Amino acid sequence: MMASPPLRILTDSSTERSGVRWRRFDLSRDGRRIPGILWTPAGATGPHRLVLLGHGASGNKSQDYVESMAKRLVRHKGLAAAAIDGPVHGDRRLEGAEADSSEVFLHFAQVWSSDDTMTDEMVQDYQATVDALQDLEDIGVGPVGWWGLSMGTILGLPFVAADTRVAAAVLGCMGMTGPTRARIQADAPRISCPVLFLVQWDDELFARDTAFALFDAIASQDKRLHASVGRHGSVPPEEFAASEEFLAGRLLARGSLC
Amino acid sequence: MMASPPLRILTDSSTERSGVRWRRFDLSRDGRRIPGILWTPAGATGPHRLVLLGHGASGNKSQDYVESMAKRLVRHKGLAAAAIDGPVHGDRRLEGAEADSSEVFLHFAQVWSSDDTMTDEMVQDYQATVDALQDLEDIGVGPVGWWGLSMGTILGLPFVAADTRVAAAVLGCMGMTGPTRARIQADAPRISCPVLFLVQWDDELFARDTAFALFDAIASQDKRLHASVGRHGSVPPEEFAASEEFLAGRLLARGSLC
Repeated sequence: MMASPPLRILTDSSTERSGVRWRRFDLSRDGRRIPGILWTPAGATGPHRLVLLGHGASGNKSQDYVESMAKRLVRHKGLAAAAIDGPVHGDRRLEGAEADSSEVFLHFAQVWSSDDTMTDEMVQDYQATVDALQDLEDIGVGPVGWWGLSMGTILGLPFVAADTRVAAAVLGCMGMTGPTRARIQADAPRISCPVLFLVQWDDELFARDTAFALFDAIASQDKRLHASVGRHGSVPPEEFAASEEFLAGRLLARGSLC
Repeated sequence: MMASPPLRILTDSSTERSGVRWRRFDLSRDGRRIPGILWTPAGATGPHRLVLLGHGASGNKSQDYVESMAKRLVRHKGLAAAAIDGPVHGDRRLEGAEADSSEVFLHFAQVWSSDDTMTDEMVQDYQATVDALQDLEDIGVGPVGWWGLSMGTILGLPFVAADTRVAAAVLGCMGMTGPTRARIQADAPRISCPVLFLVQWDDELFARDTAFALFDAIASQDKRLHASVGRHGSVPPEEFAASEEFLAGRLLARGSLC
């Protein structure tokens, strides 16, 4: 099967040593450019369950921890993973992934503070990404996973609430706070899929009490919270491993496609 | 090597089908009777790392979830596990394990409320148990683990704080509250070993805020908190599995004796 028209593969490489095939793609939706990366098992054919990864503010679709999470899912679990750049991030900027991170952060803070369309646009971008990637013969139609912390929850939680294809989600490093609090508060009670929620005990950006309030508001009965010692950006390897087990357990339990 | 004098094996059976050897023992310490059970891999010789298990109020050393945790550690990880009856519990009572659980609960509440010696006596009982069991040739000297929720934290946290042989501890379903709060508050900052702390999000006995305060007070840098949906007594199988992985990871990483 061919990819649907709006999906354009820009570069495609497969590193057999590390077992991961890497595809840089662009999607267009209503004239809007959605730059993304798809990671799949090298040399594999046939369908694979997909996990979408959301990066953090000032980062981008290929920042270290996003790529690390993607490779874990591909190598250890035989899943596919994809990430797209957030609003005003990465290849959506003129200067691309080389942009100064403080400048990107400030830019995001502005867009976040005056959010009218940012959340809705990103939810549609994520949905368009799933639509397009599930047309690929090595993805295929099926339940998908979500993994996104911090900005990856600010934007990902509304996507998880909106899209019934999401069968498991890792969220966290975020609380019931910020300019889009009302949206988060409205969407959390709409989530019913299994959730793993990560908290950094000493989070200097989002106080743990607000994180507890957000976890509490998520309607899923199958949810659990893992708190780790450390600041906002110090999520330990243990929780990347827990994320991997959680997503694979939920996505592959419905009958592995691999 | 023979067991040290105060250890008396009362019954000894090995069920090869389930792979677990079961030994009912009694210890005496200063005229005080300490009834216990030791679970080890059936047919095994040579040393095994030991995990002490603390049961909950109104339960006893062989209640379902204690025995289940013990068997997991033995069968899946090749560890040894032991439990002794708490104060006024199990075979420390005239009526033994057949005692009415409400009556035992009330009795414990009384002893807990007027605690002068209960905690110290139990810490000494746990230490005597480790001393005696480590004399057995299929245990041997080495680091030990602790697993105890609710009353198993009320009494176990002071033991973990007092005994440097404890190399990893699972605690929880308890908060910075209750008649022995001052003791817990004094001991938590003395704990430095790796800790997994379990919280039941809807705990009707110990409010989650008090559990967070207790987790916060534990001095260990290598600590994490897992919160699950449900009431006090509804710790899910997922957290028994996490306990098993955590204890085995910490106890066996120092060089397996098995």
